[in-house]
Amino acid sequence: MTRIGILTSGGDCPGLNAVIRGAVLKGTEVHGQEFVGFLDGWRGLVEGDVIPLDRSRVRGLAQQGGTILGTSRFGPYQGPDGGAQNIQKTLDRLGVDAVIAIGGEGTAAASKRLFGEGIRIVGVPKTIDNDLGHTDYTFGFDTAVEIATVAIDRLRTTGNSHKRCMVLEVMGRHAGWIALHAGTAGGAHAILIPEHPESLEQICEWVTSVRDRGRAPMVVVAEGFTLPEMEEAYSIKGLDGFDRPRLGGIAEVLAPLIEEHTGIETRATVLGHIQRGGVPTAFDRVLATRLGMAVTDLVAEEDWGHMVALHGTDIARVDFDELAEPKYVPDERYQEMRILFG
Amino acid sequence: MTRIGILTSGGDCPGLNAVIRGAVLKGTEVHGQEFVGFLDGWRGLVEGDVIPLDRSRVRGLAQQGGTILGTSRFGPYQGPDGGAQNIQKTLDRLGVDAVIAIGGEGTAAASKRLFGEGIRIVGVPKTIDNDLGHTDYTFGFDTAVEIATVAIDRLRTTGNSHKRCMVLEVMGRHAGWIALHAGTAGGAHAILIPEHPESLEQICEWVTSVRDRGRAPMVVVAEGFTLPEMEEAYSIKGLDGFDRPRLGGIAEVLAPLIEEHTGIETRATVLGHIQRGGVPTAFDRVLATRLGMAVTDLVAEEDWGHMVALHGTDIARVDFDELAEPKYVPDERYQEMRILFG
Amino acid sequence: MTRIGILTSGGDCPGLNAVIRGAVLKGTEVHGQEFVGFLDGWRGLVEGDVIPLDRSRVRGLAQQGGTILGTSRFGPYQGPDGGAQNIQKTLDRLGVDAVIAIGGEGTAAASKRLFGEGIRIVGVPKTIDNDLGHTDYTFGFDTAVEIATVAIDRLRTTGNSHKRCMVLEVMGRHAGWIALHAGTAGGAHAILIPEHPESLEQICEWVTSVRDRGRAPMVVVAEGFTLPEMEEAYSIKGLDGFDRPRLGGIAEVLAPLIEEHTGIETRATVLGHIQRGGVPTAFDRVLATRLGMAVTDLVAEEDWGHMVALHGTDIARVDFDELAEPKYVPDERYQEMRILFG
Amino acid sequence: MTRIGILTSGGDCPGLNAVIRGAVLKGTEVHGQEFVGFLDGWRGLVEGDVIPLDRSRVRGLAQQGGTILGTSRFGPYQGPDGGAQNIQKTLDRLGVDAVIAIGGEGTAAASKRLFGEGIRIVGVPKTIDNDLGHTDYTFGFDTAVEIATVAIDRLRTTGNSHKRCMVLEVMGRHAGWIALHAGTAGGAHAILIPEHPESLEQICEWVTSVRDRGRAPMVVVAEGFTLPEMEEAYSIKGLDGFDRPRLGGIAEVLAPLIEEHTGIETRATVLGHIQRGGVPTAFDRVLATRLGMAVTDLVAEEDWGHMVALHGTDIARVDFDELAEPKYVPDERYQEMRILFG
Repeated sequence: MTRIGILTSGGDCPGLNAVIRGAVLKGTEVHGQEFVGFLDGWRGLVEGDVIPLDRSRVRGLAQQGGTILGTSRFGPYQGPDGGAQNIQKTLDRLGVDAVIAIGGEGTAAASKRLFGEGIRIVGVPKTIDNDLGHTDYTFGFDTAVEIATVAIDRLRTTGNSHKRCMVLEVMGRHAGWIALHAGTAGGAHAILIPEHPESLEQICEWVTSVRDRGRAPMVVVAEGFTLPEMEEAYSIKGLDGFDRPRLGGIAEVLAPLIEEHTGIETRATVLGHIQRGGVPTAFDRVLATRLGMAVTDLVAEEDWGHMVALHGTDIARVDFDELAEPKYVPDERYQEMRILFG
Repeated sequence: MTRIGILTSGGDCPGLNAVIRGAVLKGTEVHGQEFVGFLDGWRGLVEGDVIPLDRSRVRGLAQQGGTILGTSRFGPYQGPDGGAQNIQKTLDRLGVDAVIAIGGEGTAAASKRLFGEGIRIVGVPKTIDNDLGHTDYTFGFDTAVEIATVAIDRLRTTGNSHKRCMVLEVMGRHAGWIALHAGTAGGAHAILIPEHPESLEQICEWVTSVRDRGRAPMVVVAEGFTLPEMEEAYSIKGLDGFDRPRLGGIAEVLAPLIEEHTGIETRATVLGHIQRGGVPTAFDRVLATRLGMAVTDLVAEEDWGHMVALHGTDIARVDFDELAEPKYVPDERYQEMRILFG
Repeated sequence: MTRIGILTSGGDCPGLNAVIRGAVLKGTEVHGQEFVGFLDGWRGLVEGDVIPLDRSRVRGLAQQGGTILGTSRFGPYQGPDGGAQNIQKTLDRLGVDAVIAIGGEGTAAASKRLFGEGIRIVGVPKTIDNDLGHTDYTFGFDTAVEIATVAIDRLRTTGNSHKRCMVLEVMGRHAGWIALHAGTAGGAHAILIPEHPESLEQICEWVTSVRDRGRAPMVVVAEGFTLPEMEEAYSIKGLDGFDRPRLGGIAEVLAPLIEEHTGIETRATVLGHIQRGGVPTAFDRVLATRLGMAVTDLVAEEDWGHMVALHGTDIARVDFDELAEPKYVPDERYQEMRILFG
Repeated sequence: MTRIGILTSGGDCPGLNAVIRGAVLKGTEVHGQEFVGFLDGWRGLVEGDVIPLDRSRVRGLAQQGGTILGTSRFGPYQGPDGGAQNIQKTLDRLGVDAVIAIGGEGTAAASKRLFGEGIRIVGVPKTIDNDLGHTDYTFGFDTAVEIATVAIDRLRTTGNSHKRCMVLEVMGRHAGWIALHAGTAGGAHAILIPEHPESLEQICEWVTSVRDRGRAPMVVVAEGFTLPEMEEAYSIKGLDGFDRPRLGGIAEVLAPLIEEHTGIETRATVLGHIQRGGVPTAFDRVLATRLGMAVTDLVAEEDWGHMVALHGTDIARVDFDELAEPKYVPDERYQEMRILFG
């Protein structure tokens, strides 16, 4: 009987528990596999910190946010017991035959390296930012978009009542998928994403044009967006490097600039961690469950070095390094929505 | 300037307004098109009952359920003013150059026929049942699944507190997509869909096995599911044809049968119209907005006789009759989830 | 150290777990009490079926629907081990000094009797129907109202799109509190409650007047409402006593009658069990937590024979029989809202 | 026929539209009153900027967040046209007989003064902070608490997955009602409110004790809470007065301090404007509707100088200055919940 160790690595993401449940239920039932869970991501693997995972342990997990295994930013090459050779010894000692790593870009890269050094490992892609390559969506993204959209719906009524411009900052350090989708769903008048520079002048033009039509401007900005004018803005406000980190997010930089340039009262909201916790949407639960089930097939077929991914409505298999390729918002998708701005 | 008439036909569906908004905003802005809305589906087209649709009229529609144009089950070949020839005269009289028909299978079929008879028509597929061919998803489906999933989450605690079996009936007359997705997301112990017969014996076996593990069984059933034993059941209860329609849905038939055969107290809930109204999920708003925007390109390119569809993350074009092909839950998708039953 | 047994009796109700948590946390911390839980309501007490309840067992329960103790409709005078004398023997055998009974009208009445026969018992009122006397609200009611209100919001868009009359049936066998509050919150055009007869003619007048103003009529009806004309209606349809139970709820009786008399297409939805399960609203969590905490003071003060209740923003104490008095919607409250009908 | 002008003043608050709707529907139907709306709070009154408000204008407003009349922080004694004498002239010119002012503490104080100077004015109390005297609750509060509670539910899973301490900042400048209720509902391990000082040492003790029991600490803090140690903290970090406003909220001050003193990774989230916009809860819709209806009785009875308020389940009348008295969280309510901390 194959004994599999599962780990969840990196930031929290709605659907992690559904992946674990899907894997344990199918693996146990169909492939006769046995499961343990490594605690706190790679740390549990490196330090051999495991718990048993049977059918009863994963009960009711489809709808539960977070991960029962815990997670951390610890890496598999970290510490005295890290590295492929040590990890293989630990696996042998624990009687674990294969590893399922659920994580993002960093996890994919590390898994790739471990696989190259002989570890029998497969993976499930995870990021609420949706910026992993060769998969249509990653689980957690839909939940984050829904939460951000509901926030826009709420902010809109306040914007309208006060004739204010509202700026909402959502997650997306390198890619603006959450901003693009939530902004589209919420009917934002400007969506600002890391991939596409927009000048403060252009943003203020949109804001002003919305106000001139008698509406309250709504700006959705991804945390990774920066303004060409920002450096200048910093210097105008006399902020040096030490002060900047304390400024909070880009929304808190942008709001006063918009107010200053348009004369429209502007308020910033930073959605933050609320986007990455709690009950997953049905979409994410289904996707996560299917990915968890499918990854056990990879183990059963000894198809090491691959991850599962979503292609249309099918679960496909891709190489670790394909997933590690960043997936940015394509220019045409952004331009398509840019039509709706202002 | 091209003048386009939009109509929404068939049952209500979250996202209709977002399609209308997407079309008007892009059509106006990019293609210089002009829009009117036909009221109450094909009736408005046949009777020439229109309202103007400009940018200001579609404000804030992305998040609004229902359709501002109204809908009905009226068909374009119905009544003295129906038929392609009459419709063309009406369009000429109103100065409308092209028609965007948003609807389901029936709408696609009727549009196909009208197109064959010379009407300049394009379409947007719509059904909460998700059973139209050649598109990954239809808008409205995700909202229906989310609502059904939240209902399962609520029913579960009551099932557990009372050690009862709960049966939830969701929409899906010909295809079990809503049941499959909501049941998976909600961790149902049995999912019953029209495409796949399951015997009462099998269902009761799942229910009993769940109870024996100390849990409360949750059964999700699509409205179109029927039991091989049902005819027999009817006759046992002495119900003739007249009585059956008053029986309500399949859940209300199934619940007493399960209770009778397993001895487990069983309760039925029929979700009904709640699934098809109200605020759309972010997923449906984005999909509907993109479809609405894309369908204006078809008009601009005079690509008559086509509908827009979702392929992966791309908006594609398909023939009217491709969409009219029913899309059933494939056996492998059902078998994949059936593993989780019991 | 006082050892207290808690039981939850009657129908499921959001907030039961929060009461249990509040009692255990305060009782343990402040009064040095110890707790056990009787399983499945009075059955666990009568049969001596208990589980330990300590601080760690009630973790995270504030937001969890249902009851970890299980519930049933079993009564304390039921079975060979029932009755005050037997129960006292069971309590002695288990070393339990006092009982906290969480339940509705029946529980209050039974508790009263047990108290009269020497059992050291106190209580927490529970009903989603909100029809217990001498308390402003009962926990669970707010959650039920919220769920019903969200359902109305969803049904409204479908009603408007199809120009249909929508009829929603909510809980309330003897009192129409849920219908009154949800109907008010949802802007219903008619609210029908058991306490106040309305004729079919009047209902149809409201429905017609709404339609004549171009809107879709929304009727909210409590399950306990009956129509004076109903007997007549039954006989028109040729239904005898045997058929009636199969008719489902009042909404399913009312909808075809409204359609028949007004000519307006009418659809019924029966909300059912969805109203009584799942995550409680914040209001119910706070109320339930406070009641749970307060009931431990009664035990500490040996103030047997009382229940806790909500008076304004204060937690008060009332006699068992005060709570057992039914609390109907007062005529002035109904007339106040009746102004908004039509 | 009495002609009444309504205005909404101060910050946005879910339920404002429901008050307007309740007043217009009852006033029109029962008292034969006529209504206009002053735009943007007192500004509309002072400048005579009005719109007609009839039955059709308030359709569907019960569930709509924000205020269709707009709001601002403008005061009635502001500008050249301000003051009771000018306002009376404006009212005369517009043919408006009486004013209904919906607002908070400032509005109550201003209304009191205007009333003393002869203006026929009555009021409806409004604040999401719930800190107005002589009313059990104000509308908007329940919605804010619900939103904050849902946020805690989401943050909790991330806290648990990462073994982090999560700090959530909610509204409450002078009174900690939102923090108290949301923290109780969400099962927070520490609730910090302006009325009750807690030392950093005490907070860290709670946080540490939670972590030692293997859980993730959750701290809910009202924006108006300050730390005795904060001055010291500022000086340690070398922040002078100029830097402080840029620090953001108290959560962003507290989180690094907790992390520093306990060694537990800590993250701050500031909920901000999301709490005060969007669809109201059913509780707030009912309360707001009833207050709106009741305030028209005051006008009908010429009972000037009063506001409506909630006492238990009744709508009562109180003086303007009673409502202007701040209502703080009483020490016993805080101590009651403090038991649950740690």
